[in-house]
Amino acid sequence: MTMQASRTRRSFVMEEAVAILGRTPATLDAMLRGLPEGWIVAHEGSDTWSPFDIVGHLIHGEQADWLPRARIILEHGEARAFDRFDRFAQFSVSEGRTLASLLDEFAALRQKSLRELAMLRLTDSDLDRHGRHPELGVVTLRQLLATWVAHDLDHVMQISRVLGRQYSDEVGPWRAYLRIIRDAPG
Amino acid sequence: MTMQASRTRRSFVMEEAVAILGRTPATLDAMLRGLPEGWIVAHEGSDTWSPFDIVGHLIHGEQADWLPRARIILEHGEARAFDRFDRFAQFSVSEGRTLASLLDEFAALRQKSLRELAMLRLTDSDLDRHGRHPELGVVTLRQLLATWVAHDLDHVMQISRVLGRQYSDEVGPWRAYLRIIRDAPG
Repeated sequence: MTMQASRTRRSFVMEEAVAILGRTPATLDAMLRGLPEGWIVAHEGSDTWSPFDIVGHLIHGEQADWLPRARIILEHGEARAFDRFDRFAQFSVSEGRTLASLLDEFAALRQKSLRELAMLRLTDSDLDRHGRHPELGVVTLRQLLATWVAHDLDHVMQISRVLGRQYSDEVGPWRAYLRIIRDAPG
Repeated sequence: MTMQASRTRRSFVMEEAVAILGRTPATLDAMLRGLPEGWIVAHEGSDTWSPFDIVGHLIHGEQADWLPRARIILEHGEARAFDRFDRFAQFSVSEGRTLASLLDEFAALRQKSLRELAMLRLTDSDLDRHGRHPELGVVTLRQLLATWVAHDLDHVMQISRVLGRQYSDEVGPWRAYLRIIRDAPG
């Protein structure tokens, strides 16, 4: 592998993955806690999500997606497909909640998920085990865990984008230099 | 303004802008401090930037871009164009530094910038004042400050993207669901 290649792609390494997963709650906390309400409920139009919606979605992921699916792979392999994940669960789950309480809940759930992940003491051959996604078909446990990491980062990216695009009309000619505003909406 | 419009675009309000600007150092700290080295130097190929490079760029922005340009507008209006900003200064400035020391420096500089910004006690008519960008032409102080906010968020977005794309080959079929990986590189 060239130096270049090694800087653009990483192989899945558990400690490196956990280093990202463990930081996401504090990242969201630093970005969002105490922000004026207008930022929290901002979105990108029609049925796109606000920072508030996204934190609710991440909570539901801890409850219904990542560790639960890892357990299905370990216990049932390809024999049992994952339960479908409800991408809209947060709209009922988060109703009437404050952002602060959602951030607290996400942090607690993530800490619990990572504790349970560590207790599984997954080996390389565990990571190669197959499961079955209801739409995508056969996947490995390694792919599930790598997706957990990328999914966190995707939503941190989304929150930044949702916030930054709020000033699309305010930056004037600088728009040309700001990818966050210039690019296609989310 | 419809509810919809009010959630997709915000007018510049100083307190709301400062709320974002003040959170960026802690956001970067939560995301990056102590991460394994491979994540810190990861990039998107050829001459794209790593998280390490981006923190250096943000430091240079505090020193040479935002407040200095605001002062040029207030003191000289359109009569004096801004100094050109060196988008590659971080490569020499950050050489041999640790990420931790760059994060500390950025946090200190940002705190100082925001203290000085508050001391300017800018009025609405100050925000309407014109300056001259060496390439973009006439801009207002309000546009400069809105760009400062969007620029922070653009780079938080970029760091998330750089990190997430490292697992492009590891997520397998989930690639289809992950915008961070599916979309065009940075």
